[in-house]
Amino acid sequence: MLDSLFKPKSVAIIGASVKELSIGNRILKNLIDFGYTGSIYPINPQADEIQGIRAYKSILDVPGEIDLAHIIIPSKFVPQAVEDCGKKGVKSIIINSAGFKETGPEGEAIEKDFLLRAKKYGIRIFGPNCQGIINTDPNVRAYCNFAFTKPEAGYISIAAQSGGVGELIHQGFSEMGIGTRLYASNGNACDVTITEIIKYFGDDAGTRVIVLYIESISDHKAFIEAAKKITDKKPVLAMKAGRTGEGEKAVYSHTGSSADKDIITDIILEKAGILVFKDEGELCRAAAAFALQPLPKGNRVGIITNTGGPAIIATDVLIDSGLDIPMLSEQARDYLIKQLHPEACVNNPVDLLATGLSKHFRIAIEAMINEDHIDSIFINFVTPFFVDTVSIAKEIADAGIQKKKPIICNLMTDKSLWTETINILKDAGIPCYSFPSDAAKALAALVRYTGMQPEKKL
Amino acid sequence: MLDSLFKPKSVAIIGASVKELSIGNRILKNLIDFGYTGSIYPINPQADEIQGIRAYKSILDVPGEIDLAHIIIPSKFVPQAVEDCGKKGVKSIIINSAGFKETGPEGEAIEKDFLLRAKKYGIRIFGPNCQGIINTDPNVRAYCNFAFTKPEAGYISIAAQSGGVGELIHQGFSEMGIGTRLYASNGNACDVTITEIIKYFGDDAGTRVIVLYIESISDHKAFIEAAKKITDKKPVLAMKAGRTGEGEKAVYSHTGSSADKDIITDIILEKAGILVFKDEGELCRAAAAFALQPLPKGNRVGIITNTGGPAIIATDVLIDSGLDIPMLSEQARDYLIKQLHPEACVNNPVDLLATGLSKHFRIAIEAMINEDHIDSIFINFVTPFFVDTVSIAKEIADAGIQKKKPIICNLMTDKSLWTETINILKDAGIPCYSFPSDAAKALAALVRYTGMQPEKKL
Repeated sequence: MLDSLFKPKSVAIIGASVKELSIGNRILKNLIDFGYTGSIYPINPQADEIQGIRAYKSILDVPGEIDLAHIIIPSKFVPQAVEDCGKKGVKSIIINSAGFKETGPEGEAIEKDFLLRAKKYGIRIFGPNCQGIINTDPNVRAYCNFAFTKPEAGYISIAAQSGGVGELIHQGFSEMGIGTRLYASNGNACDVTITEIIKYFGDDAGTRVIVLYIESISDHKAFIEAAKKITDKKPVLAMKAGRTGEGEKAVYSHTGSSADKDIITDIILEKAGILVFKDEGELCRAAAAFALQPLPKGNRVGIITNTGGPAIIATDVLIDSGLDIPMLSEQARDYLIKQLHPEACVNNPVDLLATGLSKHFRIAIEAMINEDHIDSIFINFVTPFFVDTVSIAKEIADAGIQKKKPIICNLMTDKSLWTETINILKDAGIPCYSFPSDAAKALAALVRYTGMQPEKKL
Repeated sequence: MLDSLFKPKSVAIIGASVKELSIGNRILKNLIDFGYTGSIYPINPQADEIQGIRAYKSILDVPGEIDLAHIIIPSKFVPQAVEDCGKKGVKSIIINSAGFKETGPEGEAIEKDFLLRAKKYGIRIFGPNCQGIINTDPNVRAYCNFAFTKPEAGYISIAAQSGGVGELIHQGFSEMGIGTRLYASNGNACDVTITEIIKYFGDDAGTRVIVLYIESISDHKAFIEAAKKITDKKPVLAMKAGRTGEGEKAVYSHTGSSADKDIITDIILEKAGILVFKDEGELCRAAAAFALQPLPKGNRVGIITNTGGPAIIATDVLIDSGLDIPMLSEQARDYLIKQLHPEACVNNPVDLLATGLSKHFRIAIEAMINEDHIDSIFINFVTPFFVDTVSIAKEIADAGIQKKKPIICNLMTDKSLWTETINILKDAGIPCYSFPSDAAKALAALVRYTGMQPEKKL
């Protein structure tokens, strides 16, 4: 179990520093700022206190038990530090330091050395050459990481073989107003593997969706076996980098691992029921939709718009992605003709026009929910100054909360002015995207996942 | 000439309204708020004054000359209003009202009626069923449009056959901190065509790049002929919607025009030397790169990063897009090994590590500039708290200002915290993108355009 890593009751920081711009200083600061609920023990041979917290010369001097230790000292000193942790009874270690396998044979030898010592004491090693973990659970609040993005609490757990990409995904979520649940970036991954991490995420009740950034998988068979069990319960979305020959070389420079061939990884991920993305932005946007909306039963979408062009763009992307945009039933069309503006269009897309009011949105959304041959609702919503966009947002939010069919929204607005409108949609868990193509691709990802389900169950 | 439309010395608003949430009120407000430099004449049979500006009962009562008139009254009254404009000597009319060709035979008849009257008087009609124009030139500041985004002054001119998409593009630019030069959204386009508009943009000295959103082209031959001349001088980037059968139907509902078949449009645009995009976000991001950076001489890119994973993602996308990431010369590699951190990687990508300092960025950028077999520079720049990111931004900015080779930056940061770093890059005209794939595709667009040049000149 990785509880000592993800839910540590106490954290020691070997290499905690008084220097403000050092990693050993920042990890301590991040833990404090994020509101970590456990005990913190800075380890530093010179300082008595760092950032107001009592420091210890050696980890062996710490009075209490230690679940997790950070190691942030030069690589050559790491084996001895691991040995000390073993003597102290530390359960997990995050080695943030670099200078191991990724740098050549000498570093590789040091890595082997500390690994042997860790095994001797039954310590799990996370990293080295890594960022660390984050747990946003209010009971834990562990930011064991030197990164700078402080995620809101959310439903998506992230495992990234690159800290930079992890940061990127957090930034992507943050710009969409979406939070994170658990985060792990395990760098060289000499011991704790991606497979173990996703197993842990799979068992975590607070995780609705898992997002993976993969450069290489060390044990294909174990990975597929573990992932299959998880994807039966919750969606796993992944991106594999090092897809090209040049990218593969860059992966080797980065972590010392050989990138798997693209084709092999695709087969592995597909076998495991994982949804694969080639674009990290698309992955982030899809994850938001998975975290917030129910899955559609099929590929038939109803489009409601108050602006022509963006609905056409969405139509193109949805059709390109294999979705259907069926005609509404005659009954629904007759009803809409009577209820909407005379110039409104009651085909699919239903165009309410820019002058469409909140009641028109409600009527159109209800019609789409009542149509048996519509599985999901796509809304292009521009915020003209001349309609009450707050009321429109409330209608979309009301329909969204019912969760009868997934609703995806392409919201076109000035984010600095229409804040109330935006917040109503956000609070109701309606995933909103500025570009229609982005919104359409997020819905297409939900549909793609639905399409994978029967196969998986056979 | 369309000067009366894009640089009007005076604007009348037929249908100017005292009602705050009406289009006739907003167009007046937008003109005032944007700082329009010419005369404004609200026309309203009841009001003496609107928003502090004297109103007239009829356009025929206006004392001065009128370059441009907005018409925002119900469609059935439009032909008479056009007739009045003719008598007054108005040169151009923007018809914002809907209810014409796009609604069926009756509306089509009204459209024919007002068109005949306009021709009789030599008036040019912009629209109907349209948003209008924007000119950010400090000498003009014409916001003849009921939209809500107020663009900064910039170098990109936009012609969009959908006002919603125009708004979308403005939003996209605004989120990137990029401005607009001229904007035109001509709706049904019954008279002034996209071809004429892009000709006008082509001749405009302040326009560096033209962005087009097209649903249909009315006169293919004229369009190709005009566009060819423009693309000899400046890049034209376009997106065509209604690419799919369903999208085509949606185009017809939207503007009453038949969408051109995708394949035909592609051939037309390619013949004209126009760069075509299928994703509006990609189009916006590419436009920023074209507006701010020189064109690369070829497809060979040097990558500099301070974070491993994002550089791998960029590598994959660049290679997929047909770019080369060649090894650096032995001389350059030897030099970099001596100058950078010992753990730094001097392959291409050059990985400075997260601890890379501003001097390391400068050295790596200079090396890339000096390498004859490198045509462009791609930078993955994450902003760790433990390095002086302001100094790094200054080094990138300095290199960017020299404009020796195009520089594209994947900037990974918290936008609310690293504002100085962001602003230095922005002020130096370095196009910055949050996602590495997005940044890589923007550079790939520059390279794609370079690749089109020899063919065009043969």
